[in-house]
Amino acid sequence: MSQKKQHTVAVIGSGNWGSTIAKILAENTSSHPDLFTPNVQMWVFEEQIQIPSDSSHHSKFGDKPQNLTEVINSVHENVKYLPGIALPENLIANPDIEDVVKDATILVFNLPHQFIEGILDQIRGRHLPYARAISCVKGVDVTDGEVTLFSELIMEKLGVYCGSLSGANIAPEVAAEKFSETTIGYDTPPMDVDAEDGSPAENRIKVDEQRQTKTRPTHTKLTRVPPELVTVDGELLRTLFGRPYFHVNVVRDVAGVALSGALKNIVALAAGFVAGKKWGENGKAAVIRVGVLEMVKFGRTWFPQSVEERTFTEESAGIADLVASCSAGRNFQSAKHAVEKGVSVDEIEKSEMNGQKLQGTSTAKSIHKFLEKHGKVADYPLFDAVNGILEGKTSVGSLPKLLDKRFG
Amino acid sequence: MSQKKQHTVAVIGSGNWGSTIAKILAENTSSHPDLFTPNVQMWVFEEQIQIPSDSSHHSKFGDKPQNLTEVINSVHENVKYLPGIALPENLIANPDIEDVVKDATILVFNLPHQFIEGILDQIRGRHLPYARAISCVKGVDVTDGEVTLFSELIMEKLGVYCGSLSGANIAPEVAAEKFSETTIGYDTPPMDVDAEDGSPAENRIKVDEQRQTKTRPTHTKLTRVPPELVTVDGELLRTLFGRPYFHVNVVRDVAGVALSGALKNIVALAAGFVAGKKWGENGKAAVIRVGVLEMVKFGRTWFPQSVEERTFTEESAGIADLVASCSAGRNFQSAKHAVEKGVSVDEIEKSEMNGQKLQGTSTAKSIHKFLEKHGKVADYPLFDAVNGILEGKTSVGSLPKLLDKRFG
Repeated sequence: MSQKKQHTVAVIGSGNWGSTIAKILAENTSSHPDLFTPNVQMWVFEEQIQIPSDSSHHSKFGDKPQNLTEVINSVHENVKYLPGIALPENLIANPDIEDVVKDATILVFNLPHQFIEGILDQIRGRHLPYARAISCVKGVDVTDGEVTLFSELIMEKLGVYCGSLSGANIAPEVAAEKFSETTIGYDTPPMDVDAEDGSPAENRIKVDEQRQTKTRPTHTKLTRVPPELVTVDGELLRTLFGRPYFHVNVVRDVAGVALSGALKNIVALAAGFVAGKKWGENGKAAVIRVGVLEMVKFGRTWFPQSVEERTFTEESAGIADLVASCSAGRNFQSAKHAVEKGVSVDEIEKSEMNGQKLQGTSTAKSIHKFLEKHGKVADYPLFDAVNGILEGKTSVGSLPKLLDKRFG
Repeated sequence: MSQKKQHTVAVIGSGNWGSTIAKILAENTSSHPDLFTPNVQMWVFEEQIQIPSDSSHHSKFGDKPQNLTEVINSVHENVKYLPGIALPENLIANPDIEDVVKDATILVFNLPHQFIEGILDQIRGRHLPYARAISCVKGVDVTDGEVTLFSELIMEKLGVYCGSLSGANIAPEVAAEKFSETTIGYDTPPMDVDAEDGSPAENRIKVDEQRQTKTRPTHTKLTRVPPELVTVDGELLRTLFGRPYFHVNVVRDVAGVALSGALKNIVALAAGFVAGKKWGENGKAAVIRVGVLEMVKFGRTWFPQSVEERTFTEESAGIADLVASCSAGRNFQSAKHAVEKGVSVDEIEKSEMNGQKLQGTSTAKSIHKFLEKHGKVADYPLFDAVNGILEGKTSVGSLPKLLDKRFG
């Protein structure tokens, strides 16, 4: 086999999880120069920051406001969103999205879901047509009674194949290189596999047929990865994302991975409500159990051809992420504090989240709107209860009763 | 249908979980006089106790040693094993095992597994031949390369059909009537169902055929429940065990329920080791995920006809109990303290457990011995690692590597 051209990796997003994933990718590109060009571009929404006076970098910059990208590239630390973690020197912060994506053959999306549509509009037409993408974005888009995963939205808007990454990955712990696992959903497009031996590329990808509406990609417009590049498949992705402290499992169920990363935040809110009430570990475990069942039911009902139950019950993206999110995630903590202080989750979001938005509250509302439109709210008593609590219509005290109608 | 005779319920065991279950049963027998005789006898291993000086009952008894059963029956509180919890007056502590079981049509076993064989020897021949049993005993018996569940041991020794109960039921939380769920495994013997309409009783029960060895019950010697008694089935058991704060699901998979209650304690030790190392929630979630997979594999391999995977992945006895036990159970806490203090789990057991034994350490050793005999240790890297750590042969630091051989 002749020498292949290297892949170039770009990360879109630079919050604590975006920066952590970018750190991992840059570690791997530099240790695999045969497969990847070393530099990883990370798109950063440019902002002016002041270096905190207790930062070890304060003496270098003083009190004068600095561009965040310049600080990152100077001290190799995202002092605002991932302070205290040394980033590899081959990780380059870049405020220019067009410049970030133009040479990238692998695009990794890792930013809050409310920013994804806007950034895709800026990227469209400026990226390589044969690029492949991985979405680390949590949440789903619900419009006109249809639920769209962000991996689907990326495929649709850019016309590039997009997998998904999700797992029990509380960002500061991964950044500190504590042991964890993740799941990548990636079903290598057959055209990419065929390209190896020069045989005709097939344009078929396993998707739910009934989900191929006019607003969804049919995958017939994908451009195949040129044969001079190594095929983007499970093996390449394990090399790119795996670290001794970050174990990667690759599965074909892209939708299940993306969906569990979205739905688990609804369950984490419920677990937070239970914890706020001091109902103990039994009660929280019950909520997690019922939560997995509703996640499985949602996947099987609305993505029947593509979602596999075992993604929810066996993968890091499923049960493990749910367990971790119900102990230490932001949605869990905010819901817990809301109950403890007797205020709404919205109020906690405003007072404690520093301008950031909880992913779980918007997901709970979107999913509820979707289920309502399809007349299926009653099939998901936990999801329904969380939405009701968020809207102030349901009391946390009624959760046990709602979870088991036999016990009025 | 004519008026049926009432069932009489007895509990064998009076630790914190035994007393808690007895409390639930007594609450339900008194509120369903049509189905049950009100009094629930609870067998208590008689011991002399001194009432603590800070107990509200100290003024009544003073410093003079008292019989535990007399204290329980006088103040309706198990002041030694479940202090602070009011017990129903129709719950009767009784030190005489023969007297406890002689009229009982439903026997509930709830005592540490090291005492079960001895107590069965005392009961044999003294109980009603048509009694039905539920085992709440955690653990398995491994003898001569065979693994036996305590529900099986009870069937074998007494010749009565025995189901199992297990779930995310940390005892003090259930005793305080905080919301929780449990799973009862009970596959109503067909002879009991047939008895209703007087048709001939069948002696068939779903068991693993390859497990019917000379040491195991063939179920052909079961005596059917007389037709004047209500059939012991899922509905009756839900009425007997269910409370507004204690949701019961009945499944047919007796072995899966019993097995998950045993195996989860091995995983809880692993989670405790990870917590002791301060590896965070991601690492603990990874251990729980791998733990469920090994539990499922064990069940499917050694109980292929009877165990259902969903008992582990969907029931309170499975994933929910595992999650709760990996946050607050005694095995988890002891393993965590052992790592934090740099001592063995055995030393923690001696210094912190007040003479009680951890169920997880003996289960880990039994299961390891069993797997070793069958040459299958390598299929269960987490179970193996836990046993190695308990024996001082494996370091906790090598856990991540052991869990994913790809990352040497």
